[in-house]
Amino acid sequence: MQMNQRDVIYLDNAATTQVRPEVVDAMIEYLSKDYANPSGIYAASASAKAAVDAAREKIAVAIGATYGNEIYFTGSGTESINWAIKSTAQAAKGRGRHIITTAVEHHAVLHTCQFLEKNGFDVTYLPVDEYGMISVDKLEAAIRPDTILVTVMMANNEVGTIMPIAKIGAVLAEINTKRDKDAKILFHTDAIQAVGHIPVDVNALGVDLLSVSAHKLYGPKGVGALYVRRGIKLPAFIHGGGQERGRRAGTENVAGIVGFGAATQLACAEMAEEALRHTQMRDDLIGKILASVPHSHLNGHPISRLPGNINITFEFIEGEGMLLLLDARGIAASSGSACTSGSLDPSHVLLAMGLSHELAHGSLRLSFGRYTTTEDLDKLMEALPPIVERLRNMSPLWEDFLKPI
Amino acid sequence: MQMNQRDVIYLDNAATTQVRPEVVDAMIEYLSKDYANPSGIYAASASAKAAVDAAREKIAVAIGATYGNEIYFTGSGTESINWAIKSTAQAAKGRGRHIITTAVEHHAVLHTCQFLEKNGFDVTYLPVDEYGMISVDKLEAAIRPDTILVTVMMANNEVGTIMPIAKIGAVLAEINTKRDKDAKILFHTDAIQAVGHIPVDVNALGVDLLSVSAHKLYGPKGVGALYVRRGIKLPAFIHGGGQERGRRAGTENVAGIVGFGAATQLACAEMAEEALRHTQMRDDLIGKILASVPHSHLNGHPISRLPGNINITFEFIEGEGMLLLLDARGIAASSGSACTSGSLDPSHVLLAMGLSHELAHGSLRLSFGRYTTTEDLDKLMEALPPIVERLRNMSPLWEDFLKPI
Repeated sequence: MQMNQRDVIYLDNAATTQVRPEVVDAMIEYLSKDYANPSGIYAASASAKAAVDAAREKIAVAIGATYGNEIYFTGSGTESINWAIKSTAQAAKGRGRHIITTAVEHHAVLHTCQFLEKNGFDVTYLPVDEYGMISVDKLEAAIRPDTILVTVMMANNEVGTIMPIAKIGAVLAEINTKRDKDAKILFHTDAIQAVGHIPVDVNALGVDLLSVSAHKLYGPKGVGALYVRRGIKLPAFIHGGGQERGRRAGTENVAGIVGFGAATQLACAEMAEEALRHTQMRDDLIGKILASVPHSHLNGHPISRLPGNINITFEFIEGEGMLLLLDARGIAASSGSACTSGSLDPSHVLLAMGLSHELAHGSLRLSFGRYTTTEDLDKLMEALPPIVERLRNMSPLWEDFLKPI
Repeated sequence: MQMNQRDVIYLDNAATTQVRPEVVDAMIEYLSKDYANPSGIYAASASAKAAVDAAREKIAVAIGATYGNEIYFTGSGTESINWAIKSTAQAAKGRGRHIITTAVEHHAVLHTCQFLEKNGFDVTYLPVDEYGMISVDKLEAAIRPDTILVTVMMANNEVGTIMPIAKIGAVLAEINTKRDKDAKILFHTDAIQAVGHIPVDVNALGVDLLSVSAHKLYGPKGVGALYVRRGIKLPAFIHGGGQERGRRAGTENVAGIVGFGAATQLACAEMAEEALRHTQMRDDLIGKILASVPHSHLNGHPISRLPGNINITFEFIEGEGMLLLLDARGIAASSGSACTSGSLDPSHVLLAMGLSHELAHGSLRLSFGRYTTTEDLDKLMEALPPIVERLRNMSPLWEDFLKPI
């Protein structure tokens, strides 16, 4: 089976994106022709190495890094997050074992923190309000003398809420002025949903470590990067050869890295225009859904929100049934993080926002991409209200609700 | 600059290989059309998931695994090795902290072991003989009550020596019959240079864990796999989403995995024929080099050796100069592991085999691939002896050697 935007209305761009044709072309060169190992001593290796470093510069420019060599390539955004958190913990364990994060992080952060909790670390999971937003005051109040790391996502993958990263960065900078040079609290942000979609500037945000993934911005799966601010002594997470200046071993995924660089550059060049287009489509679609489907509610922040994210709860139904019926109509969507589908647990993000298990189960995430058109959304609007109605008519909860008291 | 077999005589296939055209074609499908995240609930995801599982089966068949789900995809062979060793250590640390390996492993194994040594583990590095071969008796003698893991490479990446993995497996199986079920010594092999080149059968070898990489067998860089024998409780190394049955988080590199599966299947189908062709070319070329260049010596085992590996020391010269002059003639080769080039240290493998620093510095590795022809080797033989002669004429050591005593 083949899928492309001609046969499927793809509204799950937060899960992954289609690799752009220009990016595929750039990658093919490094699979079939410039295939040398960048570590060789011969001319062909120099060409591969130059391609990797050119991609590094593109990522650096995209996130406002001062130096290209603050960018380290990894095998995924998840690996970047594991590296940032575990290696910070390893390096700092002699002076502190307290980490601050939020209850609504991606599982890559949460499960890594839980792993550290089993290994002698103490983690504070900050609560969020009804919009999925954390409180910077609560974060500041949670800081202890033994706090070594704060890790807060830039934009939530399920509900799209954009966190106040720059404010947190400013708070930490102020606190760090009172700490010894070797006892600074490091600040990591999972910016995997943000880069290529909203402006990201590591210096303006005041982050020390930032994780990014190629496949969320029309690049290939299987390649990510970690920004490590110059001067931060982050030990390696994967040991072996001397690649990535001795910090991340393993032969460089040259084609993937080239694709990542090309995709990032293109996404950032189009960002302003795309963000505006998505925001207009988003707000228009939210209005239409809430108006045409009774007992539906928007999840996530109404304003501080990713341009391409919609997350709506439909009372009295199960999200899974909705996804299956949408799929039958050729519409691909999700009920939350792609990484947790297949699980029967309700979204930890929606629960942290105060939704009941029942309401969390009835949620739908629609995430736009550069190939999403208003025609796609018109077709969604033809399909969605009848699907919700059909599912409600099958639901005992709906029946109960309609009964006269 | 573009490189392909038309303009470059590529004799560094142990560093990396050109992705086969059929493999590139298979990958493009999953970059541009079947791009869905395998974790979605819709039809397109089912297609991506099926492609990943089909590749898993191909890898399983290639290494004789009993079950497809004993194969876990990773971001590189190096990640597989890190995972196998570190997670075994983590799971077993309560009952033992002794690991046995060899002095000639790839840095992915050695540096991981050194990392563990800094974290409370004790590692025995078995010596090798002049051919780079370990002694199974010495390995057996090194086993202690607190030994938790033996990790020995299947074939050496620098000198091509094929280790007696099946014999080690049999020794460990015997010892493990006397141990409690939960106190078995695990056996890992780095088979990255072996799979697709020589027969590999996890059951015949008696290994519990086996690492493999796609880009050494005409697949893409950035994807590897770890075989984990059913029943082995290996904790996750990268935490996050529930991919790979909860054992390796991160969105699956679908295109890379599909390419890995296709490349492995093709390499194994051609293995017998290619191994014979390479062995003949290898032995012919070794004979010609040793006959035409005085003071040259073969490194590695003369018989128990990878079909496509030649490693020769030329006395009185520096390998680096040789590589640069070969490169100027359009011939890509290496002086050892690609991962250590750029380093001025002599090969740890050659040193462990008893070579002096001087001799280790004068070594050349030539590694064949499916695109290597006898014409390539004829051209190498035109270039190589004059290059050695030229370098020797520049060498003070050579001058000293020629002086009458």
